[in-house]
Amino acid sequence: MTGSVDLLITNGIVMTMGADNRIVDNGAVAVCGDAITAVGPAGEFAALTARETIDAGGGIIMPGLVNTHTHAAMTLFRGLADDLPLMTWLNDHIFPAEALLDPQKVQAGTLLGCAEMILSGTTCFCDMYLFEGAVAEAARTAGLRAVVGEVLYDFPSPNYGPIENGFAYTCELIDRWRDDPLVSIAVEPHSPYLCAPDLLTTAAGIARDNRVPMVIHLSETRSEVADIRKKYGLTPVQHLADLGVLGENLLACHCVILDENDMDLLQRHGVKVAHNPESNMKLASGIAPVAELLARGVCVGLGTDGCSSNNNLDLFAEMDMAAKLHKASRLDPTVLDATTVLRMATIEGARALGLDGITGSIETGKKADIIVIDTRKPHLTPMYHPASHLVYAVGGSDVSATVVGGRVLMKDRQLLHLDLEKIMADARQIADEIRRHQDGL
Amino acid sequence: MTGSVDLLITNGIVMTMGADNRIVDNGAVAVCGDAITAVGPAGEFAALTARETIDAGGGIIMPGLVNTHTHAAMTLFRGLADDLPLMTWLNDHIFPAEALLDPQKVQAGTLLGCAEMILSGTTCFCDMYLFEGAVAEAARTAGLRAVVGEVLYDFPSPNYGPIENGFAYTCELIDRWRDDPLVSIAVEPHSPYLCAPDLLTTAAGIARDNRVPMVIHLSETRSEVADIRKKYGLTPVQHLADLGVLGENLLACHCVILDENDMDLLQRHGVKVAHNPESNMKLASGIAPVAELLARGVCVGLGTDGCSSNNNLDLFAEMDMAAKLHKASRLDPTVLDATTVLRMATIEGARALGLDGITGSIETGKKADIIVIDTRKPHLTPMYHPASHLVYAVGGSDVSATVVGGRVLMKDRQLLHLDLEKIMADARQIADEIRRHQDGL
Ligand SMILES: [Zn+2]
Ligand SMILES: [Zn+2]
Repeated sequence: MTGSVDLLITNGIVMTMGADNRIVDNGAVAVCGDAITAVGPAGEFAALTARETIDAGGGIIMPGLVNTHTHAAMTLFRGLADDLPLMTWLNDHIFPAEALLDPQKVQAGTLLGCAEMILSGTTCFCDMYLFEGAVAEAARTAGLRAVVGEVLYDFPSPNYGPIENGFAYTCELIDRWRDDPLVSIAVEPHSPYLCAPDLLTTAAGIARDNRVPMVIHLSETRSEVADIRKKYGLTPVQHLADLGVLGENLLACHCVILDENDMDLLQRHGVKVAHNPESNMKLASGIAPVAELLARGVCVGLGTDGCSSNNNLDLFAEMDMAAKLHKASRLDPTVLDATTVLRMATIEGARALGLDGITGSIETGKKADIIVIDTRKPHLTPMYHPASHLVYAVGGSDVSATVVGGRVLMKDRQLLHLDLEKIMADARQIADEIRRHQDGL
Repeated sequence: MTGSVDLLITNGIVMTMGADNRIVDNGAVAVCGDAITAVGPAGEFAALTARETIDAGGGIIMPGLVNTHTHAAMTLFRGLADDLPLMTWLNDHIFPAEALLDPQKVQAGTLLGCAEMILSGTTCFCDMYLFEGAVAEAARTAGLRAVVGEVLYDFPSPNYGPIENGFAYTCELIDRWRDDPLVSIAVEPHSPYLCAPDLLTTAAGIARDNRVPMVIHLSETRSEVADIRKKYGLTPVQHLADLGVLGENLLACHCVILDENDMDLLQRHGVKVAHNPESNMKLASGIAPVAELLARGVCVGLGTDGCSSNNNLDLFAEMDMAAKLHKASRLDPTVLDATTVLRMATIEGARALGLDGITGSIETGKKADIIVIDTRKPHLTPMYHPASHLVYAVGGSDVSATVVGGRVLMKDRQLLHLDLEKIMADARQIADEIRRHQDGL
């Protein structure tokens, strides 16, 4: 190979995460503009001229991770309250803190989340929150790929007021961001328990008409299932099926409490699932039947959920948790093997967001969303199988470079385009306000 | 306070982990020789002259973590094989690899483990393996506090041969290391299923006569419990009770499969428990009833177990896992709150090893086993409650300084007394040999 490229990432084990899970032992990836133009043995790239080169130092070159479910601005509430009954936690801590939010604070919290994601190897995230216009701006500022959507529910929103305005706000977001190279919009009704049937079908209609994804919390807790049963005589999944809301563009977050029929419905309608093991564990929601969903062929991505129920955005920790949790729950050490979990955090996550043609694997023609792992550390020594290390031993802090759409966002643990000190100072100032407010309650 | 000290660690939130869980918000710790001489507000230490100062930069100063159960040399098998049925994993991968070991390799693997532990904030570990003389040497070289013991079982050992020699080897270790400031010896029969009753009672006698701890794997898997029931008509815990082996100096590792009577027996005899959630999950052994043990007042410490079933030695990850796992398992978000888990990884771990007079808390008179956490990072911003961060957000790589017995082993992520490049190169060379051997099988 000769000629010149914009970026060459070389001297590493390339985990392509393509359909064949091809691994190039001493490999390189060439990038022109925002796209991957070649992947192969490093030797073949030796004659290439590159405007910029990243030397992986014998480490791992892989697709950036995809966080299929988070509320990025909730970094502001990280560790505000833990280990409490769900209703105490929500009513006495999270809701009062959220009442203080405005677009500026949401943008500040999201920027903090973006900084954390870039530093821990996440290149794409799916967000649901209030003031999502500010989230979209923050993602663009940070240079991350993002699918964002304003949370919709029956009661008046601090952002848009009544639900009709919520639909209008969502449609405006869709129009404004339609041609953005990184940010796209989803329609995001909160959940079957906070959204009336009308809201759900209208939201589904907007998503269908605009060909964008719909994102919803679904079957997260036993009390949700009991509530929906009481109200509609159906499980939450059956309820959505009856409303005609299940479909290939639906991303259902959590899906902890499912019966066989629910799983069949999700499979039959091609619904995608965001699995958030750490949040489900910390909030004591339970253990989603992920092995069963995967056995049915359901697409399952990984998510961190918000920082207040995790308490970080590190998808490497989430992979480790997912791989181990289901082994313990099923009493079977062979379920959710390392490669399966790695696919959930990369290409399956991208598929869950409808972005598998864009990101999630290192293949010619895809956008260059790539991270590098520095393996020259005791906890990653020796290395027999890179997939094993990535799931069971690597942490977010082992990421040494993060590239999104060909743009290097982080190198040698330094953020290249964000003022990290200012971002952290802003977050601390908002936290001071939240602390004073909570102390006064 | 005036005068001079050897080491001053200042400008941080001091988590003492004493009986009152006292936290000094802007605090400092003074060290003379190997011991803590004062703890208090940083301002009180301003006039002090210190030979060496560590500035915590507003982060967290806390006791070093205690790993109550590991096989440190198994770092050599990190990621060698995962996601397999237990017997395939052991018979086709771990046992053949272990057949290649000798004292030099065990020392090399243990040094690698020590490097990883120092870098992730562990200052004391309890080890069980072959060639433990070499483990003791490695711990001394690394400067870590350690309780080590040669594994004893019915079949001939690659180290000592027949069991009589195993007892003699253990007694020699006890004599040789009796006055060492950091390393002490335990008597370590492998488990009820690999040790005949005679072995167990002899081992208990040696431990009692020498006033040293005894360490054993106990009730780790359902198949172990079934085997012991078949052989002796008793649960493993009942079996040890009948043999008169249960006592305050016994550290029982795992205790995954326990009935009510087993828990009562452990409580009544003052047995200590090492909880290894990641290993128990990865090997699909199950979920230990830790909340129930704690409710009974049983002392429970945390352990990583060996790297082949984890796959790292990071106790911060283990804390996160423990705190979340039992919430999911018990469907109760209030169990194993952050402070409880933090105590398990520090003072309760020290108590489990009979070292609570020596380490595990920052109190005047205790040995200076102290770590510093750098919290000036996005994933640790903002900070409302330090205990929450330590359990739910901090990773081993956030440790910025590690001190054992007053000696600074790591500062600014640099190991000060170990040749890390050589340690990693040695481990890679041994791994090459293991890989060639496994490929030839
Ligand atoms: Zn959520
Ligand atoms: Zn063990």
